[in-house]
Amino acid sequence: MSMTDPTTIAPSQTHSSANGPLLKQAMAARAKVIEATIDQLIPPTSGGDARLIDAMRYATLGGGKRLRGYLAMATASLFDVPDCQSARVAASVEMLHAYSLVHDDLPAMDDDDLRRGQPSTHRKFDEATAILAGDALQTKAFEILAEAETHESTTVRIALITAFAQASGAAGMVGGQMIDMEGEGRALPLEEVRHLHALKTGCLIRYSAEAGAILGQAKPELQQRLRSYGANIGAAFQIADDVLDATATAEELGKTAGKDEASGKSTYVALLGIDGARAEAERMAKSAIEDLAPFGEQADRLRDLAYYVIERRN
Amino acid sequence: MSMTDPTTIAPSQTHSSANGPLLKQAMAARAKVIEATIDQLIPPTSGGDARLIDAMRYATLGGGKRLRGYLAMATASLFDVPDCQSARVAASVEMLHAYSLVHDDLPAMDDDDLRRGQPSTHRKFDEATAILAGDALQTKAFEILAEAETHESTTVRIALITAFAQASGAAGMVGGQMIDMEGEGRALPLEEVRHLHALKTGCLIRYSAEAGAILGQAKPELQQRLRSYGANIGAAFQIADDVLDATATAEELGKTAGKDEASGKSTYVALLGIDGARAEAERMAKSAIEDLAPFGEQADRLRDLAYYVIERRN
Repeated sequence: MSMTDPTTIAPSQTHSSANGPLLKQAMAARAKVIEATIDQLIPPTSGGDARLIDAMRYATLGGGKRLRGYLAMATASLFDVPDCQSARVAASVEMLHAYSLVHDDLPAMDDDDLRRGQPSTHRKFDEATAILAGDALQTKAFEILAEAETHESTTVRIALITAFAQASGAAGMVGGQMIDMEGEGRALPLEEVRHLHALKTGCLIRYSAEAGAILGQAKPELQQRLRSYGANIGAAFQIADDVLDATATAEELGKTAGKDEASGKSTYVALLGIDGARAEAERMAKSAIEDLAPFGEQADRLRDLAYYVIERRN
Repeated sequence: MSMTDPTTIAPSQTHSSANGPLLKQAMAARAKVIEATIDQLIPPTSGGDARLIDAMRYATLGGGKRLRGYLAMATASLFDVPDCQSARVAASVEMLHAYSLVHDDLPAMDDDDLRRGQPSTHRKFDEATAILAGDALQTKAFEILAEAETHESTTVRIALITAFAQASGAAGMVGGQMIDMEGEGRALPLEEVRHLHALKTGCLIRYSAEAGAILGQAKPELQQRLRSYGANIGAAFQIADDVLDATATAEELGKTAGKDEASGKSTYVALLGIDGARAEAERMAKSAIEDLAPFGEQADRLRDLAYYVIERRN
């Protein structure tokens, strides 16, 4: 660990939303590494499984912000974890995220034809291929975490797999998707909306921030700090997403806009209004920054990220 | 290990298909333990995730032969692995098998309304719930393998997860499902049919037999023996399945019969005829029994199983 004692260091005062360009640079650089890692972990093939592999690659290599992967790599770098290890964890969480989007876009679910401005996987291929590609992406994500290249310690790998499974299964992401679907067309109270989003998008974003600390074998207190940071970032991100859906154009989003209101979904915007939702997102971003107090200026990009998630336009 | 030196022991001569009743008893006893373990690992809930959990339980607790789970427990018992550990591995592989059936039955895939004589999960619930329940079952299967209750050694747990992921992902079960779908309506040569089934059903059955050896930290040679046994059992099972589809009634099968011929699938029966397919299944069963040569009479039920898979009527 290169960090000096967290109890003697004051949080860096250099961060502000004006440092957005530095963050964007850092995210773009990490995204390239993550993309190359996914490309290597799911290599193209001309064999009998070519169509499945093509669909897996289509769903995962289409760019995107790589927020989750960035969080894993950036938090891991606080503990001097080699990029070659954290990039694999980042690739794995991006694969899991991609599988959830592929299944979420299916006609029986959200029925979305567009994803990042491109045809969603079942539109580009077909429904059966999309179902199977999503299934295989989930498997691949777990397989990567189990491999020795991800970390030399089996204890660390097991800790990653456990946290990952909890964040993405019935008590995490998938559970949130289910509650979301069941709530469609019904007016949910704010607490239920918070709970649903904490599961649906929050758990995996929280895991991503925590993953770096697990990889870095960080002290429990620091691990807990990054968990909390991730949870706050996840909440801020989702509220900002609701605001974007209500205010941005389809062109900016690269997907259908205004879908939430059209489908009668209970969103933060519906419950708090656009300004109220923005204020709530800002509170979450500030809490996220407070969580980083024990970390020095090495964590400045993570501080920038808290502003970024609530200021982004897509 | 209670086993005496495998090189000095002759394979038991007591096995024959006449011992079917002993095997059925053993399978029924294991199936009860596996069912109880699944029930405990996915407990019912009345919370917001009740519908998802209900669907997961519906898909996994509906009985069935528990062939994969039985293999894991029976091979583990060769190495004196406690049942409380092997039952978790068995539950995990049955959950993975169940998820694959839930997704396979979807309208966009095989479009099957019946499973074990009951409405398939998407008919009992709805398509979206079935997709999510399948997704969450896969996650749960990996989560269980990562837990300390499954084995005290993280190295063993990692070995289980790796073998499991390889057997069930794009290079295993899901890859086989994809090739199967793409081959529909086309006449495939025998070698391709063999390859497709080795992936689609073979890999997970092979893993199940291997899992006991991994749990038991068996010598590589014995592990390889059980891998080969599992692969032969898997092949025999699939050929017998094709024969059953062509000869049994829907009532016997608990699902639609004659579907393969109706959909123009390339099956062993289509390629070899019913008698030819039966002969091929018998060859596989004999090879499976040869694989068990190093094991004593403790492996007799596994020998019975080789006959059972080709003689069963459902």
